[in-house]
Amino acid sequence: MTGLNTQSYSIQFNEPLALKSGAQLASYSLEVQTYGQLNANKTNAVLICHALNASHHVAGLDPVSGKVGWWDNMIGPGKPLDTDHYFVIGVNNLGSCFGSTGPMSINPETNVPYGSTFPLVTVEDWVLSQARLADYFGIQKFAAVIGGSLGGMQALAWGIQFPERVEHCLIIASAASLSAQNIAFNEIARSAIMSDPDFHEGNYYAHQVTPRRGLRVARMIGHITYLSNDDMAEKFGRDLKRIKGDPQDYRFSFDTEFEVESYLRYQGEKFADYFDANTYLLITRALDYFDPAKNHGGNLSNALAVMQSKSLVISFTTDWRFAPDRSREIVKALLDNKHSVTYAEIDAPHGHDAFLLDDERYHGIVRAYFSKMQKDLA
Amino acid sequence: MTGLNTQSYSIQFNEPLALKSGAQLASYSLEVQTYGQLNANKTNAVLICHALNASHHVAGLDPVSGKVGWWDNMIGPGKPLDTDHYFVIGVNNLGSCFGSTGPMSINPETNVPYGSTFPLVTVEDWVLSQARLADYFGIQKFAAVIGGSLGGMQALAWGIQFPERVEHCLIIASAASLSAQNIAFNEIARSAIMSDPDFHEGNYYAHQVTPRRGLRVARMIGHITYLSNDDMAEKFGRDLKRIKGDPQDYRFSFDTEFEVESYLRYQGEKFADYFDANTYLLITRALDYFDPAKNHGGNLSNALAVMQSKSLVISFTTDWRFAPDRSREIVKALLDNKHSVTYAEIDAPHGHDAFLLDDERYHGIVRAYFSKMQKDLA
Repeated sequence: MTGLNTQSYSIQFNEPLALKSGAQLASYSLEVQTYGQLNANKTNAVLICHALNASHHVAGLDPVSGKVGWWDNMIGPGKPLDTDHYFVIGVNNLGSCFGSTGPMSINPETNVPYGSTFPLVTVEDWVLSQARLADYFGIQKFAAVIGGSLGGMQALAWGIQFPERVEHCLIIASAASLSAQNIAFNEIARSAIMSDPDFHEGNYYAHQVTPRRGLRVARMIGHITYLSNDDMAEKFGRDLKRIKGDPQDYRFSFDTEFEVESYLRYQGEKFADYFDANTYLLITRALDYFDPAKNHGGNLSNALAVMQSKSLVISFTTDWRFAPDRSREIVKALLDNKHSVTYAEIDAPHGHDAFLLDDERYHGIVRAYFSKMQKDLA
Repeated sequence: MTGLNTQSYSIQFNEPLALKSGAQLASYSLEVQTYGQLNANKTNAVLICHALNASHHVAGLDPVSGKVGWWDNMIGPGKPLDTDHYFVIGVNNLGSCFGSTGPMSINPETNVPYGSTFPLVTVEDWVLSQARLADYFGIQKFAAVIGGSLGGMQALAWGIQFPERVEHCLIIASAASLSAQNIAFNEIARSAIMSDPDFHEGNYYAHQVTPRRGLRVARMIGHITYLSNDDMAEKFGRDLKRIKGDPQDYRFSFDTEFEVESYLRYQGEKFADYFDANTYLLITRALDYFDPAKNHGGNLSNALAVMQSKSLVISFTTDWRFAPDRSREIVKALLDNKHSVTYAEIDAPHGHDAFLLDDERYHGIVRAYFSKMQKDLA
């Protein structure tokens, strides 16, 4: 076999979806991209769960945007998750802004965008919506569900909600819940968005504006937490933003003075160009709310008792957003239940972002794991 | 002797002050509060340098506001810095918003507030303005200059700019320059303020508004960096904001859901009530710019060669804003020059904020240091 064999789908689900909040979506659609080929027994499917701002476009080049998929270094022919052997499914989360039903979509009951009326969705709701996607493809059991960061939470939630439908959970740079500090960062980002006068309580579409100021600040805050302190020091240090020949003295102004400011402003602007503010609120709230131990008196081991999957848990030493000790909590809870778990703590300088980067040791472990799994495929 | 013997001053300086930026202030006033009594030889004076949002009101109860000075646990009769023996001077930094000349002050040349036309001031400019304050009191040499965080930078700058006028530099929870990550946090806070439509390019006084949204976000960002991750976990964890009898389920909204959100929002509101936005910009930029090694090819040891003072350097283990390794850089540079330096790394859970808190080991060291100094007072 050769090539990615990319297929794109917009799949409409007309059975109502009962959400954890008590609200209900009468119908919804999911934007999907698949790579490789589903085998005859439908045992080689791998579901990719995305983090905050990613999408169903996981691998390969998008012919329209010209952009490469967000996990292209991991997924493709001959890559760690090898599409010559696995059928890989990328799906845009419900409530996101890349084609699946979300706040920007037209509410069929009102014929205007949902905006602030789009119901809050949770990680568990995503899993539920994705189970119907598995049904659509006739997949009884995923060979693996894999994700990094928020995507890792989804992989874990899959193992809890549908123990019999996941052979392996791959949980990367993730945590079983947000810490107070994590929630604090989310709250500040949301405050920046919601206090932007262009937010209009979430109904900015009708005003033909977007709360760009808030989105910019939200993204800048996020970015600090994605990079390690060392990585920022290495990348930017105290370098001044200068073009050739400019003096190396300070300019004594509030304009861009340091390289790191320039970088953050650029990231903020870029993000405000393409990301939907209501989606940002929704997804960060889903992160805040994820806490499988909550209904078990805070006992994560009890929460994971129901799982049947084998797990691979990976963390990165300089990740301070989801530090290795948060991954070790998951490993400990899995071991408390005598579940099969492999844990790797990768010594990498790039902070939380490391899960998206091409690191030899990291990719080597994922490659070996999928390669071993392959032998067990029926 | 008994009592604080608090004295308040507004001191006007009419000799022009040449600033590092090249700009000049024709005149300025400094708001000052003193405690204790200057001895006959004027050798027992200690200058207190404040951090971002503090003021000249360092110790004791303010009869008007009813507030206690920001370092009252450290300074007073019988306290680690004992006002029965030392003459302590608190001064509000130039450019701040608590009485000293700053953006809110009326520019005598235009008869309207300076606003955005107030020149950028640096740590070195503060030291220069404070040297005139020493002259005003007839103090040839301070027994000590002490400060935490940005105040510690000022203490260090004093030692560099006026080596013969400082006997001891006490540099607490500080650094010889900001890291890229530190600058990044400042930049986001400034972006939040400057993008607030009520900012009006710094001339919001004329519009009779304040950029509250921006100030709130700025303060919330700051607060995360003042507390340690562990401290936030201990203080708030994932506790929900509930009053007695409320259900423990999520509310599924973007309103205050977690205690940590409630705390941050409260801190943001409180800050927006009293702090001036232009001052926030100015002081964070002064922090960004401080870098005594810059004119020595990045070599801090060379930059500190000129110092004559003895130093006490203190850091706190969980401070991730100015982590202990930043203090160790200062210690190393002082030792490279064979300067006398004492270093203490305090095992404290409270992050950067620890320098303001009453910790037995921390206060014990400061007390012992001042007590030993006392014996050397002429």
